[in-house]
Amino acid sequence: MGSEPEASEREASADRIIAFSDGVVAIAITLLILPLTEIHPAEGATLADIIVENRAALGAFALSFAVIANYWTIHHDVFRPLRRHDARIGLLNMFWLAAIVFLPFPTALIADGIDGGFAAFYIGTLLVVSVLNLLIANYLAHDPELTDREATAESRRHVVASAFSVGAILIALIISLFSPSLGLFGLLLLFPAQVIAGRVNRVGQVNA
Amino acid sequence: MGSEPEASEREASADRIIAFSDGVVAIAITLLILPLTEIHPAEGATLADIIVENRAALGAFALSFAVIANYWTIHHDVFRPLRRHDARIGLLNMFWLAAIVFLPFPTALIADGIDGGFAAFYIGTLLVVSVLNLLIANYLAHDPELTDREATAESRRHVVASAFSVGAILIALIISLFSPSLGLFGLLLLFPAQVIAGRVNRVGQVNA
Amino acid sequence: MGSEPEASEREASADRIIAFSDGVVAIAITLLILPLTEIHPAEGATLADIIVENRAALGAFALSFAVIANYWTIHHDVFRPLRRHDARIGLLNMFWLAAIVFLPFPTALIADGIDGGFAAFYIGTLLVVSVLNLLIANYLAHDPELTDREATAESRRHVVASAFSVGAILIALIISLFSPSLGLFGLLLLFPAQVIAGRVNRVGQVNA
Amino acid sequence: MGSEPEASEREASADRIIAFSDGVVAIAITLLILPLTEIHPAEGATLADIIVENRAALGAFALSFAVIANYWTIHHDVFRPLRRHDARIGLLNMFWLAAIVFLPFPTALIADGIDGGFAAFYIGTLLVVSVLNLLIANYLAHDPELTDREATAESRRHVVASAFSVGAILIALIISLFSPSLGLFGLLLLFPAQVIAGRVNRVGQVNA
Repeated sequence: MGSEPEASEREASADRIIAFSDGVVAIAITLLILPLTEIHPAEGATLADIIVENRAALGAFALSFAVIANYWTIHHDVFRPLRRHDARIGLLNMFWLAAIVFLPFPTALIADGIDGGFAAFYIGTLLVVSVLNLLIANYLAHDPELTDREATAESRRHVVASAFSVGAILIALIISLFSPSLGLFGLLLLFPAQVIAGRVNRVGQVNA
Repeated sequence: MGSEPEASEREASADRIIAFSDGVVAIAITLLILPLTEIHPAEGATLADIIVENRAALGAFALSFAVIANYWTIHHDVFRPLRRHDARIGLLNMFWLAAIVFLPFPTALIADGIDGGFAAFYIGTLLVVSVLNLLIANYLAHDPELTDREATAESRRHVVASAFSVGAILIALIISLFSPSLGLFGLLLLFPAQVIAGRVNRVGQVNA
Repeated sequence: MGSEPEASEREASADRIIAFSDGVVAIAITLLILPLTEIHPAEGATLADIIVENRAALGAFALSFAVIANYWTIHHDVFRPLRRHDARIGLLNMFWLAAIVFLPFPTALIADGIDGGFAAFYIGTLLVVSVLNLLIANYLAHDPELTDREATAESRRHVVASAFSVGAILIALIISLFSPSLGLFGLLLLFPAQVIAGRVNRVGQVNA
Repeated sequence: MGSEPEASEREASADRIIAFSDGVVAIAITLLILPLTEIHPAEGATLADIIVENRAALGAFALSFAVIANYWTIHHDVFRPLRRHDARIGLLNMFWLAAIVFLPFPTALIADGIDGGFAAFYIGTLLVVSVLNLLIANYLAHDPELTDREATAESRRHVVASAFSVGAILIALIISLFSPSLGLFGLLLLFPAQVIAGRVNRVGQVNA
């Protein structure tokens, strides 16, 4: 057997792991609406009553939708150069998927209340996802066989971006131990963290 | 790196955003049946009893299934010429998906009753989806790089069709503030709106 | 624009309608387990108690899983030769998907009891799916442009098979009006119906 | 019609059965979180209370996620060389999918308690999946037409691996009849079983 059909077989293989991941993320992001579909307005309740009563659940839905959408976009970017995959990247990806699938549980908890450690639990789950992003990007950056040429440079930029995200979420987690609501707002640190990571990456490119 | 592999990489990339969107829409449209599966007939109840009791839930299922099926068809047509995508179209698409995923919530609310602002809430969610359709079609129509040649003309036709849809839903929304049930029937204005948009597009083609 | 890129674009288009349908069917078939996951054994209950108590729900799951798996296989075979699609086949397919998505509702009803018209409702839903199969196969058989060459002959065989299925389900439906349980067993008529359809098709091929 | 387009048509066909299977598995693995999203902390309950109270449900989620992820990886490896498929492999695959879709039911049962035969029921479901893995791998190993060249050797290795898995689960099942918790831990026998299967396969390769 020549090397070309084998390579194409491996590509299809990478395609399938990506398609499976997309399916899992698509379901996890859609299931977030389920708790809201179980709301039954009391006799005579207006839309305003329903929204005020369920504002935490609505906020938790919006937050987790944004979080999963963002993680999917990162996954999309990190896996884009992947042509083949091995058992280790498959395993790291399964842990990543487990953390994404798990997220609706802490989401449901913070919809009921953020005190008692629930905000920290939610932020901690995000920390796990981001650490797995870092491990995956790092693995791809060091195994150039797994990706396209030029992709190693791209993977290195993902490592930097993931590391800054882990830092931002870690700070939010520490804040949440003192003030749960401030901790959740601390997740906004992800935005400046990405801006700084972008600058670090641009400096790195110029120096290279 | 030559330009061809890069182009192919971007195409794969557009494929994945489309596959992810299809997954999310497929789940959202299927979840609509869940509230109906929780119906347990009382001792001795007949099919007629169940259907009469749950006619609002059955109607809401049929309406939202038709709505999401229709939006999927529009999404399919609008994204067909897309070969590559950038961050902005990815973001607009995520907002579009968020509105589609959100739809089962207002659907569950109008299954319980349409008074108290719930019909307006349902129609308002449709308005958000249609405005996002308009923004996406408009963005594609103005960035010819994103699509095939000839596709710009097609995207312009989608802009016109989306604008007429937004107009029809806006009228239904205003009606629903006075009469919720009349507002929901007002959604039927979408049919003549599409006929008129089709004529406007044909006139535009002749003049071009 | 030449004719080749256009053809390839249409093929991708047919791929997407098939992928979307697969997603919807995959979700509908998986959701069938949800009612069973809500069973909480009473203190001290054994597996035997749970199975005896929920035998109707277990039977309904097995029946509907087999039904949807079978309809997916038929859909797979009928759509295999499809290369392009038009608005009408898209609409017929959406009605087909709506009936498949609807099926978990009558499934949940017959899990609670089959008297009072519920068995007939279940069989009636299957009749709708099978009639839509017939309409889709018939449409493809008469529009050779939509499919590969040779595919017209294959589509004609699907028309015959679908027609026999419609006949078998119709008989089961009529029986169910007199005896609900006998009606459900009447669905087994689908097996001899397919054997006869196979023979009719073979005779037709020999004569052609 | 020449043989090449026909072959390509059959390949697409194998792609679709794989994509459908991935969809079903992706949904089944994601639905596992649903029971956890229905937990509503009592007034003043802390995260520690919730975790202690629901430790069985959390353990059942983790176990079943790992089980389904592992079965998906096996499915991925077993089906990788598949280029075409026939009715029998389609039917075996549907039974495999039915067992995977069924798994959330025994998972929900062992989340409530493992005595009374529930652990054995859970392990028995895994046994069914593994026996189906064995049947599928065996079928592919004996029908070289279905797969790539060289793939027959790979399929034979899957037969050996599946046979050892069936053995390990059978032992766990027998143990569970005496001690449910010990039976569940007995599933860890799957790890040494795979190591031994790997050695047997390597010896077989050397001898061949």
